[in-house]
Amino acid sequence: MSDKWVYLFKEVDKAEEKTGSWGGARSLLGGKGANLGEMTRIGVPVPPGFTVTTEACNAYLEAGEEFPPGMWEQELEAMKAVEELTGKKFGDPENPLLVSCRSGAVFSMPGMMDTVLNIGLNDETAARMVELTDDPRFVYDAYRRLVHMFGSVVLNIDDEEFEHPLDSYKKEKGYKLDTEMNAEDWQALTETYKAVIKKEMGFDFPQDPYEQLKLATEAVFKSWNGKRAIDYRNAAGIAHNLGTGVNIQTMVFGNMDNSGTGVAFTRNPATGENVVWGEYLMNAQGEDVVAGIRNASDVNEMKNDLPQAYADFLDVCAKLEKHYREMQDVEFTVENGKLWMLQTRDGKRTAKAAVQIAVDMVGEGLISKEEAVLRIKPEQVDTLLHPQFIIEEKSAAKAAGKMFATGVNASPGAAVGRVYFDADTAEAKAKEEGQDVIMVRPFTKPDDVHGMLAAKGILTSEGGATSHAAVVARQFGIPCVVGASSVRIDMEKRQFTAGDITVKEGDYISVDGASGEVFLGQIEASAPSLEEQTDLLTLLGWADEISATEGIRQAPEGWPTRGLQVWANADYPEDARRARSYGAKGIGLCRTEHMFFEPERLPIVQRMILADSSEERTKALDELLPFQRTDFDGLFEAMTGLPVIIRLIDPPLHEFMPDEHALLEEVIENRIKGTVDQDKESLLSSIEAMHESNPMMGLRGIRLSVMMPEIVSMQVRAIFEAAADVKLRGFEPHPEVMIPLTGHVNELKLIQPKLEEIAKAVMEEKGVEFAYKFGTMIEIPRAGLTADQVAEEAEFFSFGTNDLTQFTFGYSRDDAERNFLVKYVEDGILPKNPFQTIDRDGVGQLMKLTVEKGRGTRLNLECGICGEHGGDPNSIDWCYQIGLNYVSCSPFRVPIARLAAAHAALEHRA
Amino acid sequence: MSDKWVYLFKEVDKAEEKTGSWGGARSLLGGKGANLGEMTRIGVPVPPGFTVTTEACNAYLEAGEEFPPGMWEQELEAMKAVEELTGKKFGDPENPLLVSCRSGAVFSMPGMMDTVLNIGLNDETAARMVELTDDPRFVYDAYRRLVHMFGSVVLNIDDEEFEHPLDSYKKEKGYKLDTEMNAEDWQALTETYKAVIKKEMGFDFPQDPYEQLKLATEAVFKSWNGKRAIDYRNAAGIAHNLGTGVNIQTMVFGNMDNSGTGVAFTRNPATGENVVWGEYLMNAQGEDVVAGIRNASDVNEMKNDLPQAYADFLDVCAKLEKHYREMQDVEFTVENGKLWMLQTRDGKRTAKAAVQIAVDMVGEGLISKEEAVLRIKPEQVDTLLHPQFIIEEKSAAKAAGKMFATGVNASPGAAVGRVYFDADTAEAKAKEEGQDVIMVRPFTKPDDVHGMLAAKGILTSEGGATSHAAVVARQFGIPCVVGASSVRIDMEKRQFTAGDITVKEGDYISVDGASGEVFLGQIEASAPSLEEQTDLLTLLGWADEISATEGIRQAPEGWPTRGLQVWANADYPEDARRARSYGAKGIGLCRTEHMFFEPERLPIVQRMILADSSEERTKALDELLPFQRTDFDGLFEAMTGLPVIIRLIDPPLHEFMPDEHALLEEVIENRIKGTVDQDKESLLSSIEAMHESNPMMGLRGIRLSVMMPEIVSMQVRAIFEAAADVKLRGFEPHPEVMIPLTGHVNELKLIQPKLEEIAKAVMEEKGVEFAYKFGTMIEIPRAGLTADQVAEEAEFFSFGTNDLTQFTFGYSRDDAERNFLVKYVEDGILPKNPFQTIDRDGVGQLMKLTVEKGRGTRLNLECGICGEHGGDPNSIDWCYQIGLNYVSCSPFRVPIARLAAAHAALEHRA
Repeated sequence: MSDKWVYLFKEVDKAEEKTGSWGGARSLLGGKGANLGEMTRIGVPVPPGFTVTTEACNAYLEAGEEFPPGMWEQELEAMKAVEELTGKKFGDPENPLLVSCRSGAVFSMPGMMDTVLNIGLNDETAARMVELTDDPRFVYDAYRRLVHMFGSVVLNIDDEEFEHPLDSYKKEKGYKLDTEMNAEDWQALTETYKAVIKKEMGFDFPQDPYEQLKLATEAVFKSWNGKRAIDYRNAAGIAHNLGTGVNIQTMVFGNMDNSGTGVAFTRNPATGENVVWGEYLMNAQGEDVVAGIRNASDVNEMKNDLPQAYADFLDVCAKLEKHYREMQDVEFTVENGKLWMLQTRDGKRTAKAAVQIAVDMVGEGLISKEEAVLRIKPEQVDTLLHPQFIIEEKSAAKAAGKMFATGVNASPGAAVGRVYFDADTAEAKAKEEGQDVIMVRPFTKPDDVHGMLAAKGILTSEGGATSHAAVVARQFGIPCVVGASSVRIDMEKRQFTAGDITVKEGDYISVDGASGEVFLGQIEASAPSLEEQTDLLTLLGWADEISATEGIRQAPEGWPTRGLQVWANADYPEDARRARSYGAKGIGLCRTEHMFFEPERLPIVQRMILADSSEERTKALDELLPFQRTDFDGLFEAMTGLPVIIRLIDPPLHEFMPDEHALLEEVIENRIKGTVDQDKESLLSSIEAMHESNPMMGLRGIRLSVMMPEIVSMQVRAIFEAAADVKLRGFEPHPEVMIPLTGHVNELKLIQPKLEEIAKAVMEEKGVEFAYKFGTMIEIPRAGLTADQVAEEAEFFSFGTNDLTQFTFGYSRDDAERNFLVKYVEDGILPKNPFQTIDRDGVGQLMKLTVEKGRGTRLNLECGICGEHGGDPNSIDWCYQIGLNYVSCSPFRVPIARLAAAHAALEHRA
Repeated sequence: MSDKWVYLFKEVDKAEEKTGSWGGARSLLGGKGANLGEMTRIGVPVPPGFTVTTEACNAYLEAGEEFPPGMWEQELEAMKAVEELTGKKFGDPENPLLVSCRSGAVFSMPGMMDTVLNIGLNDETAARMVELTDDPRFVYDAYRRLVHMFGSVVLNIDDEEFEHPLDSYKKEKGYKLDTEMNAEDWQALTETYKAVIKKEMGFDFPQDPYEQLKLATEAVFKSWNGKRAIDYRNAAGIAHNLGTGVNIQTMVFGNMDNSGTGVAFTRNPATGENVVWGEYLMNAQGEDVVAGIRNASDVNEMKNDLPQAYADFLDVCAKLEKHYREMQDVEFTVENGKLWMLQTRDGKRTAKAAVQIAVDMVGEGLISKEEAVLRIKPEQVDTLLHPQFIIEEKSAAKAAGKMFATGVNASPGAAVGRVYFDADTAEAKAKEEGQDVIMVRPFTKPDDVHGMLAAKGILTSEGGATSHAAVVARQFGIPCVVGASSVRIDMEKRQFTAGDITVKEGDYISVDGASGEVFLGQIEASAPSLEEQTDLLTLLGWADEISATEGIRQAPEGWPTRGLQVWANADYPEDARRARSYGAKGIGLCRTEHMFFEPERLPIVQRMILADSSEERTKALDELLPFQRTDFDGLFEAMTGLPVIIRLIDPPLHEFMPDEHALLEEVIENRIKGTVDQDKESLLSSIEAMHESNPMMGLRGIRLSVMMPEIVSMQVRAIFEAAADVKLRGFEPHPEVMIPLTGHVNELKLIQPKLEEIAKAVMEEKGVEFAYKFGTMIEIPRAGLTADQVAEEAEFFSFGTNDLTQFTFGYSRDDAERNFLVKYVEDGILPKNPFQTIDRDGVGQLMKLTVEKGRGTRLNLECGICGEHGGDPNSIDWCYQIGLNYVSCSPFRVPIARLAAAHAALEHRA
């Protein structure tokens, strides 16, 4: 058989030729082998060696553990070539060539054979090497390592059989550290190890170097089908027919004179600074650095110890970066002043470093802006914008047992403050006493919002990632952990317990909204800001450019653009200003009902709801009108020149009323005590009359407007009066009125024209004109299924994917996570929480259908998303694919979304 | 212009030729004109005449109220032809031809011009006719009618101007009846009427017969654009450009010697008996019969009075039936012994008559079985199966002001009984005292079922057509009215009020579940049964034949059949037997949870739910197993040879627990009184922990099984143990296990294999084998959207359209009707209540997609529907169109569904 089974490192070209690509060469040689070849090819000093291919591995396993014909002969030839390259000879006591043997599959995976070093040593070469080097300790240390590794790794003898004799030996001698072992000690131990092999295997440690090589090669092949490796591949979804390569490489020794070894990054992986960063040790072997046996030095100190090697090292780093176009994580050894590179791979780094490196590399001409943008994961940006607990402080707190609960990581960021259990106290403590407050509740409701806004952080014992607390927290960038189910709140005692820990009102806790962890006491945090992060701003600017140009390039026939803009959800002018400063190109959702909950307005709202007649209702609404107008005025001014989508009232009216349960208790108590309060009694019956079995599917949104059109009439008047005023002050308002919860086009046909009339009337009254739109949310599956009809009226669609997911799955947002959804995700029934990431197969398909049907009726239909998914990168990718015009998310997630949008545009380039 | 504007009755062929069809001729001539032509064509004696076309009307109106060129000339020619046919002459005093003028559009509609009779009379012809007939009273009666009708109908003078003088005249003379008026009186009144015209119009009543004809023709044309006609057309969706025809017909007089007039049906319209049925009066004009001035005689008595005319009449009736192939409703006049037919049209009839006539006509060879089946509306069958209030009794009760409320007609049938307000009392009164009970509740819950089953009728003040009360009532055929919102129940006083009426416990009321009306006291009802209705059984047999043959004929390529079978929803053996006797071909839904509510089981169920450990739960389930096995045993035996779909537990567990609200009140009361009951306290906290904000979207169905697999394991064991036992007794069980509420195929992948293992284990234990299926309900929109995936596991789909509608619309079934849905339907926002009739555009499209996707994965996927819609004819039609295999409905609706299924097959014949 004429197949080529073995490639010298310098033959990587041939592997590429044979397979037709670099990827093919990687598959054939495995990652490590290909990379060693690649370094060799570009002239980086790599100790010579060769790779036995993954195909050889497969052939060996298929043939029932027999080398394929010709393979061993090729291995022997390759060894000859290495001998020529090194001037040493394998098995020759006069000038022995020692090699290492390492596995190397395409994907690195656990369970594969560990390294065997110093192959080629035997009693004879060892003895001769002692004479040659005059360093018996070095030689016998190397020899005992070979016998140990060979025994445990190649022959599968329990590692304990080797560790135990070493421990006993040191104990006997009174040594504490391996460094105390001298040449005789290592020699003695080598003999002991050989005896272990004889005892366990029934044969001697092979003295023949070629026998060593053969057995090591086979051991690597066999390890491909080891149980751990198979399990891992099954779990990770890696194919079982890839096979592993075997890398045989000349040993180099840093533990000699004028020698050393180190690990380093070509740039600072924590900050991104363009300076080589790492550690090295003089007179040491690679594993010594990792093991931390001696204190390692800054790699840049090599300049003094090994000036030539250092200069070479910097050159190699630059070369590698230029070649790989990425920061590298390298291992190297200096042997007698000569630098040898043993490994290179892309280096891991912090988010901050990732951004700086990407931006720097564009400046250095190493990579394009597109590549820079693609290198930063959107979620990495998130960590750059929220305060973070300092890693070490958090680790210390964990070690000290201060972590008392975990929950759903609902809104990222670190918060430290004193615990308060109700919104009023929380607000008072924060505002009046200037305390940092953590609001702790079983769950939150709209009338808790003033307390939440005053808090630094929020912790709830119930609810999931889209519970009220979570949504509000993300909206306002407040760190929040929800559904911490071990927390049991006792409102009467004003304390909570978690396990055996009790936290009283006023005690400090620390809430990590990014990880979902909650701690006793105060942990130190650091807080970055977007304005200061110039590299990030640069990167986001590029992302926007890409979105715009790719959007135009990829636009389907007849569309102006496919560009996915990023808008923000904002209810108040302050949020809108922040959103704009974070790069939002519009407001995709302003929730008007938040405005109804403000303390001075709520009583008017309640009077409006309880009104017996349309007149009485209109009277209350007339009082609310100026408030709403003021709300909108600021919003339009802040967003001048950009669209602002205002959603008309959505929640069921009972949300604005006092809690039924508490009122009931009070009323019953009064009745029993004989102190009946008629007002409370009648309030209770009103609230009871409003009770709905399933309020999420109840009298809300446009249904409410059909039954009670006065409220939205007031709102539309307020919107257009505000817009007119703003226009008259010289700004450019672009109001878009969004009608929620449409299920049938006839609902719009009834309501929308009446509202449009109000809009026109106001503009006429004020003598001013401006563009506006009327549209609808798509939250009801039926609206999506009949989008062709709905688009006859609606000028825009905005996917309310929270509710759309809720109805499409039939999952109550309020309960699902607590009751079954967490388990569903844990058990893999659902790949992801559909309230966090759009379920593409179900909800996503419905969205796609909706856009297609809607644009079939109205080609220029503006389509966007304002649900929580608008800030989720995976969901943003889907939004791009189905051709939405924008995603709208919390202001704090706008930078993430900008990056994700650019990623989507790049991912889907034809 | 050479257009033909006027057609003699005998020229109907020409109209057909010109337009190319009989339908075209009808459009051209209007319904009345075409029918008079048709009768003329087939040789039925019709007084000669002609029709001015609808096109002429349109041309007249378009030209600004001018006759189109040539039209009037054609009318004059047609009049000459009529003169020739009759031998009389229009306007000739010696032998005057008198004619009537009537409008006649394609659709009959209110607001069109009424009839004008006796055109052609004037002072001169009247005077000469008196001489010729020697009957001055007859002549002046006719003349005064002409002047009156002409004045009011043609000249639009207020009718009161003519009625008033007649009343005054009679008063003055001391007459009570018109019959007391003699010739002189009528002559005098004619003069008075002429004066009225002169006074109102400023001109004289036209003496020129042609002038009379012309004005009458114009008046008919103009009436097309009268306000009432336009309003009606707008409301009924009739096009405004159809126009009306004008029919001019020779007058015949029944008020002469040897003359008479009558109205009749060719068969008995109440019973369907094949005997001419109707009334006639000797010496009278048509309107006298209708006005009931004298007591009319049975039309068959004409045999004695006018034997030849009677014989001719029977011949004509037979001829008309043979021609029209339908029972006819006719008007006729006998003038001097000669029979003239004035009108024929399809006769209205009762449901009972409709069935008998259709079946008889098949026997007589008049129509095919298909036609017979198509002639009965499915809803008509409904009225044949439920007890009905006797119409006259109900009318009398209304007249007496006894109807005190109306609500949703939730379950048809008439029920009379005494009012009781809770299930226990209702059951006790019914069982122990044998009373007829009407259970009255605000709404019902599963634990009210025992009271409902014991009741003759149910009335609720809340809830809609698919509320619990409605569903249960229909399921068990109990007359039921829900959502009677005027009814206010006072549980403390044990009474309810509706307006100013108060009904105390024990009082009688009568509930009409077909109309939604509720009455004080007892109204008499009559109760038919299917077995006795042989004609209906024959018809349903034909319907089944048609479904089967059309199903095979219309099956798409590769499908075994498109046949839509009718299955039934049945929980108990007794229901199953009834369903089978009503023609059900399987059980499409057996709800296992009803079985959990039975009093002896409920405590075990509650213990199971509250169990702290899986062991404790399994122990309780072991106790339930024998109960469930017995339930299923009877069901399989009753349905031997046919499929029985059993749904595993579906509702949230808290439905099996005591009412939280009531318990809370009790606990609070105890707390305040200091008599704390620890069991109640802990029960309350357990129930509170189970509380869900939106239970419809909560922990139900397969979600429950994922979290708590023990329950369904028990159920599947019970199903298969029962089936095995039944099989061993020699029956043929075909169990199909239905898993509810699937939203993601992974749910099925987790649960279904475990249940299939239990099935196999039981069959092995029992040493018996039989076919079975595992499948799922399609209730969650996502399951439909991903049906291709779901069908990988599920062997059948059953649409749970109640929930599917609920989620697709985002309407809570429990609240929607009360809160907005009734208004939505009333205002036409929704064309129909989607919980009663499938919403084809939304839910229906989703169903279609589901079937297509499901069959794409599994060609022989059994698809059916078990929601409430399965018994609704309109929905059944849709189910046929999308290719379902069966519809399953309440046993009582099986006959309706069988007929509807055949209709669908016939409607969609290629």
